[in-house]
Amino acid sequence: MMDPANPVSKLRDLRDSIDNIDAAIVHMLAERFRCTRAVGKLKAQHGQPSRDPGREAEQVSRLRHLAAVSKLDPDFAERFLSFVIHEVVRQHETVRRVTNKDTSRSEHSSTGP
Amino acid sequence: MMDPANPVSKLRDLRDSIDNIDAAIVHMLAERFRCTRAVGKLKAQHGQPSRDPGREAEQVSRLRHLAAVSKLDPDFAERFLSFVIHEVVRQHETVRRVTNKDTSRSEHSSTGP
Repeated sequence: MMDPANPVSKLRDLRDSIDNIDAAIVHMLAERFRCTRAVGKLKAQHGQPSRDPGREAEQVSRLRHLAAVSKLDPDFAERFLSFVIHEVVRQHETVRRVTNKDTSRSEHSSTGP
Repeated sequence: MMDPANPVSKLRDLRDSIDNIDAAIVHMLAERFRCTRAVGKLKAQHGQPSRDPGREAEQVSRLRHLAAVSKLDPDFAERFLSFVIHEVVRQHETVRRVTNKDTSRSEHSSTGP
């Protein structure tokens, strides 16, 4: 049985919660990247730029507000969003290169048999 | 009604999902920092160091595995953990400074009336 007054038990208990939360966040991030990969393909197909400053400003303002409500440091929430968007843009640029390569390949092959 | 074949509707739909996921992640992060703040206080009270390389290695290995299972880039999951731990250590150092100040204050005041 865990003794809640024992600091070692307390630490283990808190770490169990942290591990559960991290598992949830990793799964949320996996789902987020599924969505942003679809956005990346859509943008590449329609020749839209990877970044959208208006959309990003809205996201920052919304996340800062949500952070304040849930007592998370809004500056940290903003840094977190920048960290994720940086990865998303990197992935979008890769999708764009692959899409452009495929397009130029299919244009070439259209003159084939 | 949303037309699922329309790229503008598709983009809006994906962004709605991204916004929901971000709200969930912000709340998860808020709860994670509640836990790590409690860990920080516990460590400061018992003079334990902010970082625990053994624990961190376990977290990296576990999150990389969870990432692979959920088709998230394991390198990104590891960078995400480093990003969060960096913030946690910064907060722990602040808690340590405050706790030490309080301890030295109460030691001084014990000679008072």
